[in-house]
Amino acid sequence: MPRPLVTLTTDFGADSPYVAQMKGRLLSLHRDAQIVDITHSVPPQNVRYGALALADSAVWFPRDAIHVAVVDPEVGTDRKLVYACIDDRHYLAPDNGLLDAVVRRDGPGWSIWLTELEYYPNEVSATFHGRDILAPVAAQLAAGLDPRLLGPAHELDVRLSWPEARCERRRITGCVWLADSFGNLITNIDHAFLKALAVPPTVRITLGGIEIEGLTRTYGDGRPGSWVALVGSSGRLEIALVNGNAAAKVGFLQTDEGEAEAVVELQW
Amino acid sequence: MPRPLVTLTTDFGADSPYVAQMKGRLLSLHRDAQIVDITHSVPPQNVRYGALALADSAVWFPRDAIHVAVVDPEVGTDRKLVYACIDDRHYLAPDNGLLDAVVRRDGPGWSIWLTELEYYPNEVSATFHGRDILAPVAAQLAAGLDPRLLGPAHELDVRLSWPEARCERRRITGCVWLADSFGNLITNIDHAFLKALAVPPTVRITLGGIEIEGLTRTYGDGRPGSWVALVGSSGRLEIALVNGNAAAKVGFLQTDEGEAEAVVELQW
Amino acid sequence: MPRPLVTLTTDFGADSPYVAQMKGRLLSLHRDAQIVDITHSVPPQNVRYGALALADSAVWFPRDAIHVAVVDPEVGTDRKLVYACIDDRHYLAPDNGLLDAVVRRDGPGWSIWLTELEYYPNEVSATFHGRDILAPVAAQLAAGLDPRLLGPAHELDVRLSWPEARCERRRITGCVWLADSFGNLITNIDHAFLKALAVPPTVRITLGGIEIEGLTRTYGDGRPGSWVALVGSSGRLEIALVNGNAAAKVGFLQTDEGEAEAVVELQW
Repeated sequence: MPRPLVTLTTDFGADSPYVAQMKGRLLSLHRDAQIVDITHSVPPQNVRYGALALADSAVWFPRDAIHVAVVDPEVGTDRKLVYACIDDRHYLAPDNGLLDAVVRRDGPGWSIWLTELEYYPNEVSATFHGRDILAPVAAQLAAGLDPRLLGPAHELDVRLSWPEARCERRRITGCVWLADSFGNLITNIDHAFLKALAVPPTVRITLGGIEIEGLTRTYGDGRPGSWVALVGSSGRLEIALVNGNAAAKVGFLQTDEGEAEAVVELQW
Repeated sequence: MPRPLVTLTTDFGADSPYVAQMKGRLLSLHRDAQIVDITHSVPPQNVRYGALALADSAVWFPRDAIHVAVVDPEVGTDRKLVYACIDDRHYLAPDNGLLDAVVRRDGPGWSIWLTELEYYPNEVSATFHGRDILAPVAAQLAAGLDPRLLGPAHELDVRLSWPEARCERRRITGCVWLADSFGNLITNIDHAFLKALAVPPTVRITLGGIEIEGLTRTYGDGRPGSWVALVGSSGRLEIALVNGNAAAKVGFLQTDEGEAEAVVELQW
Repeated sequence: MPRPLVTLTTDFGADSPYVAQMKGRLLSLHRDAQIVDITHSVPPQNVRYGALALADSAVWFPRDAIHVAVVDPEVGTDRKLVYACIDDRHYLAPDNGLLDAVVRRDGPGWSIWLTELEYYPNEVSATFHGRDILAPVAAQLAAGLDPRLLGPAHELDVRLSWPEARCERRRITGCVWLADSFGNLITNIDHAFLKALAVPPTVRITLGGIEIEGLTRTYGDGRPGSWVALVGSSGRLEIALVNGNAAAKVGFLQTDEGEAEAVVELQW
């Protein structure tokens, strides 16, 4: 039997001792678990950013992995914690929209509110449910616990507002959702959308004052310092500065949870 | 038998190749060890910060874990390296105060100076004892080596000055010890101290010009942008800005090892 | 049989979800692999920095570890990916100079261009060959695949220009190659070079306007705030500010791939 796999996605900050405390708690209860970090650099309290990082990464892991996500500004209030099984993948998270990107892509699946205290019998702080509730629950799921014992079934709704890309005649209007670590600007316009509309590779892309003629296949297809637009590894349209940092160049700020401001247009 | 567990706490910087070199050395000698990072983001040479991160996190790990800590401005001089067994937990560190927070909480335990060269027979650089001494020693302890063979017994003293919170009548004076990755300001006033003094939840807290009326249970109990004071997950009084970064707001600088400057007062 | 060991060195940024995607892909194909991060903080597209981090760290791992390195500005163009066996160690990387520091130290070994698509049968994006090609190939090598099946043999040439330290009479001229996480300035002048030239410990070192009289053994041998020069843990001459950050003090900027600008001279 393979070692159970648990991933962690949080806004605790890269290299935070809080992450280590979750790992210690988990390994205390299930020593054989293998823990992989997805990221802890979700901007603090930015649920949408966390939702995208989780959805984009979880899909690359084995199906039996347990994905624990903690971006939880309302920790300790009456917001609920959930276990969700979506497309045969397993998630533990606050029920605050953090699973929205997964649900939008893979459907609602089924989910359970965590209410049965016997599965995290130690003292629970008011401020750190990742360590005090989700870590011990993950350890027990990894050991084979039936998630239906954790509490009542509950339907997971999409909570966040997600700006959708729109198409009117031969013009698509979308926006930048986030910047990755290279500064590439990742939009809400995905590959399937472009394909359904038969957008030609010669499409003109604009972002603020920047105009780009046509889609390229990869970053190296443009001259250093030039702007390119391409479908990136997450399947979304990206705008990039070859060998440079597009986000820094345009002054893109990761918005909190509101509507992102950087409008992207495609015309053909 | 479970895989042996080793944790690492250093000031090498998040994601530093120096950490990888320690891991490579350790795995070369004990392939089956499981290594977990506590943090490598201790501010350079800040022994007190490292001591707190280590004490707060080690307690969440299984008791047989070996905690290796390296914040070692005097590497290569005649400062000693120690193995310490404190409250049945295992530590390897320079004897420079890095274990002080553990000792203050859990008592001195017993400890051994590392003097027996046969346990790290390879060449030892003058500047990287974490890789050249502590990693091979940790690997051998993980494999079951009796720590008493490593050198002579030695009593561990608290080395650092730790500003204590004081109480005079119904007024507590303490200070901010450090800021966490959310910018929450963590003080030297702990839960047990507040409880022993029967401090009421309606206590008034001041930090510089900021006044906070009463303790809250969790961050989400205040309006976004408001100041709150609460006992955090480490059991210490914290001052936080709801959905914001308190440390950035007040311009808190992580002081080196001297007395922290940000005075906190409680009155009731 | 020990668990197979795979290391990762990239410029994806510390804590990047892109790294997690590589790990997920790898673990999906070989669940038992043990993955260790060397660093993901290579400055974006800085092949030389990545080459040094990889060479300095790989040597500390067991010989059967598979070292996957991705600093790949030309991803998706016709640059090749290679497997290389150098000094009995195993590397997977783009053939763009990222293995140059290993080759310069350990000789060319033998290498294979990755051309046989059957070893990464899933869809391959144009922008993320680390996840789509190198991760599945690493998983299969970890499972025992003969690397000769991956494609044709190919000779690995050194691609990058590496400024060499020169000696004329009793004067060495070198340069700073990189700054580590403490801000120590690491030069291209190595221990063997100093030894071969019988450079005395009383040598005078200059960097810009800074003059240092003689080599010290370790950082703690100087007064806080003073400049020291020493042979560091990587075997290279380093210039450091005791208990301070030398790189910040002199305004050292990590240069891209061009000649580093900070000239270092030794005279005796």
